[in-house]
Amino acid sequence: MNTALSHDTILPNWLLRCAENQPNHLAAQCGPVRWSFTELLRQADHLAYQLAARGVSKESRVALLATNGLPFVVTVHALMRLGAILIPLNTRLTQQELAWQLSDVQATFLCSDQRYADIAQQLADEITPLAHVLITSDVQQDVLVADQTEGPVIALQETIHLDAVHSIMYTSGTTGHPKGVLITYGMLCWGALGSALTLGHYADDCWLACLPLFHVSGLTVLMRSVINGISVNLHEKFEPEAVNRAIFEERVTIISVVAVVLQRMLDALDASEAQGRYPATLRCVLLGGGPAPRPLLERCAAKNIPVVQTYGLTESCAQAVTLLPADALRKLGSAGKPLFPVQLRILTEDYQPVPPGEPGIIHLQGPTITPGYDHRPEATAHAFHNGWFTTGDLGYVDEEGYLYVLDRRTDLIISGGENVYPAEIEAVLMSHPEVEDAGVCGVDDSQWGQLPIAFVRLREGSSLTATELGPYVTQHLAHYKRPKAIYAVAQLPRNSAGKLLRRELPGLLPS
Amino acid sequence: MNTALSHDTILPNWLLRCAENQPNHLAAQCGPVRWSFTELLRQADHLAYQLAARGVSKESRVALLATNGLPFVVTVHALMRLGAILIPLNTRLTQQELAWQLSDVQATFLCSDQRYADIAQQLADEITPLAHVLITSDVQQDVLVADQTEGPVIALQETIHLDAVHSIMYTSGTTGHPKGVLITYGMLCWGALGSALTLGHYADDCWLACLPLFHVSGLTVLMRSVINGISVNLHEKFEPEAVNRAIFEERVTIISVVAVVLQRMLDALDASEAQGRYPATLRCVLLGGGPAPRPLLERCAAKNIPVVQTYGLTESCAQAVTLLPADALRKLGSAGKPLFPVQLRILTEDYQPVPPGEPGIIHLQGPTITPGYDHRPEATAHAFHNGWFTTGDLGYVDEEGYLYVLDRRTDLIISGGENVYPAEIEAVLMSHPEVEDAGVCGVDDSQWGQLPIAFVRLREGSSLTATELGPYVTQHLAHYKRPKAIYAVAQLPRNSAGKLLRRELPGLLPS
Repeated sequence: MNTALSHDTILPNWLLRCAENQPNHLAAQCGPVRWSFTELLRQADHLAYQLAARGVSKESRVALLATNGLPFVVTVHALMRLGAILIPLNTRLTQQELAWQLSDVQATFLCSDQRYADIAQQLADEITPLAHVLITSDVQQDVLVADQTEGPVIALQETIHLDAVHSIMYTSGTTGHPKGVLITYGMLCWGALGSALTLGHYADDCWLACLPLFHVSGLTVLMRSVINGISVNLHEKFEPEAVNRAIFEERVTIISVVAVVLQRMLDALDASEAQGRYPATLRCVLLGGGPAPRPLLERCAAKNIPVVQTYGLTESCAQAVTLLPADALRKLGSAGKPLFPVQLRILTEDYQPVPPGEPGIIHLQGPTITPGYDHRPEATAHAFHNGWFTTGDLGYVDEEGYLYVLDRRTDLIISGGENVYPAEIEAVLMSHPEVEDAGVCGVDDSQWGQLPIAFVRLREGSSLTATELGPYVTQHLAHYKRPKAIYAVAQLPRNSAGKLLRRELPGLLPS
Repeated sequence: MNTALSHDTILPNWLLRCAENQPNHLAAQCGPVRWSFTELLRQADHLAYQLAARGVSKESRVALLATNGLPFVVTVHALMRLGAILIPLNTRLTQQELAWQLSDVQATFLCSDQRYADIAQQLADEITPLAHVLITSDVQQDVLVADQTEGPVIALQETIHLDAVHSIMYTSGTTGHPKGVLITYGMLCWGALGSALTLGHYADDCWLACLPLFHVSGLTVLMRSVINGISVNLHEKFEPEAVNRAIFEERVTIISVVAVVLQRMLDALDASEAQGRYPATLRCVLLGGGPAPRPLLERCAAKNIPVVQTYGLTESCAQAVTLLPADALRKLGSAGKPLFPVQLRILTEDYQPVPPGEPGIIHLQGPTITPGYDHRPEATAHAFHNGWFTTGDLGYVDEEGYLYVLDRRTDLIISGGENVYPAEIEAVLMSHPEVEDAGVCGVDDSQWGQLPIAFVRLREGSSLTATELGPYVTQHLAHYKRPKAIYAVAQLPRNSAGKLLRRELPGLLPS
């Protein structure tokens, strides 16, 4: 028989295709600026030629330090037109941390917007060879420009190879040293298509992005826009009133949030004149960044807000498992079922399958999973077993195939031989009406090995003390799971994606 | 840098994934029978084990001779669970033509339903080694069965390799000898996803299939069902009243049609009590099989019927280019713009690009395009140039990127050095209110090389004669394009997909 040869899949450049097929469709709105796909392509191509003149070429490693905004978006697309590799930097890192990442990834260019121009220039002065490229706006030409020099005229990439690396994203670093996760075009494409199949796809969809674009949850919104041909409503930062206004006035249909963001949106909604209801146009509130507290889900249910819970990580290109609104309360605490291209398995430490209901390590496989970590063959080899990616997270699948994420494995507390999952304790604490946020970690104990301790942020105006939560905890948790101590704190350490940084909890202990 | 290795993309088996993620969702409805994805999987797996017991295994070549119906659907899925290759046979072929295809493709099994049991058995008796497998219904177990023998218990395929061959479909044979087109899983998958992005994707979509499942336009409806997770409303044959009833009563949202089918649906609709309007739930009428006559499009526009025109061929896994309803009248005669994964180029005979507005040969590229013809390396090499597939069809792209298909290249009439496109003449004839159908071909002429002649089917009750169309044609066509003669006939030769068989037109000439 003839054998169909295995070959890399080639697609038209996504933005180019959108500009061809839907030239006048809204691509991105940011504040008062509204760009069609044609205009976004014009901006991206103009910048791409300038970057090429500065020396950026195919497979150049180009870091980007910029706030959420159109310069960020245009730079991402310009790099795709050049076939260069994007390294989006977390703007909240210290200069030292940024320098470490830039050296580790061996970036040769560092693009920044005006806001991060000084720190970017300092980094470029410090690291060799790293050139700073400032992206600014040329008001006269109404176009974004780089501080270009003369250079050869090059042809832009008209196609995309799904096996090629699109970007390298450093994991947020809650566990061990940060590693650069290779994100291929294929991961982004299959993720966007899988998301569209699960959430539905409507020609007039408009996705609001208020989470950082330098995280995978933000970057994937930009990519879904050009893959699925829909609009992005971009916010420079999260302001609950501004986000709510966009939902009411700018026909936002989908929004990506984490729990704390959603909570603040609802508080602002209740304080507004909208009588606590969003318009029916808002068809999907995609909630990531860890299990949602029950009271939040119930509050959303009472307001008919279509919350779609999701589990994913940088290595799975965000959304990998999704719980639809119809199951939100019936399967409380579940992250749902895998997207169309994703396969899910729960395995023991020895990679043996575990039956439904029993916890194990969550493994994922499929074209949305990273091929590995940049220049870390050992870490890559360690993360895969027979082609399955080991997330390091603990979870189980119920009889109906719904995933429950128990905990990030590296945060696991082992106490007297029993496994204690911080997330479980936090969920109990957060279900108390006076508790706004909670975090649990282990402390060493000579008798038991480890013991859990808890930190809570109480609701504003609450007269409760942390120790008064004791009886509530006793009521809900087996003895070995009860925190040895509970501390009230003003703020819990969460990263910009809303993920709890449990490693930092011990630093909150009263000295 | 690390290079992401090129590798075959692996997905969960589509039906399995639907049964896992949407177990109770309607998979297929055929007459009174309604099967969920769970039930369809149960049927497919049961049959797969029986086929395995008969000797069907991975990469076995299994032909299928069956009418549109559940046995057809279940056999297709059973073969996918075994990794066997499907060869769907056109039930309208003569026994001689079937024997030729079975030998050419070297099928070792021939599945049939009860209706085609006799001819299938005769073919199996005639061809060595070809075993007939009758698919019947076991009423007691409420399951489809094959006439199984004892055999080893095998493991079913849980995944799908996108580079693997799913089926081999013989081109309808309007041009030259039939060839077996390799259809990979990847072609089907990218086609379904590209279709969903263009048409939109709604959780409650239900696709009505009344075109033959043995053609690519029918088979792709079955695949879109399990890839996109939507329902199929299956009709054994096209009965306009039954199709209209399903649209009204069974919440059909999408239907695939050809012009003559749509025309008959509208006639039946006008004769019914529905006052000539379909319900708003019918959101997409996908019209393939050649350019649509203007009066039909205008009739649909007047009734607010959302006609989506499409161009495609077996080698492009059906739908490759699509015209959305908003553009239907503005871009009359256009097939629209390419789907998300498809690239389109118009090239000369020498593979040089032609500017917009100028006709050339339509070329396609992308993961929905066949890797080639089964055991015909020369035909495959001939069909591709630098990775672009030569459709052999003539067309042009306008300034806005809309494709206009002028004609099937092999039907081109060259008269006095001028190119004459039969489709253009047919479109003029069909725009006459008294003409129901038309076909044009060339006849040899000593002076001009070739001259066009035309055949028309007049509307029932029309008092017109064919020659009376002369002045109308003169009014609409340049002299060299005018048919030398016009003949009224009772029926034009169209294949089961509704495609005009121009090669057979000369046979209609009065002797």
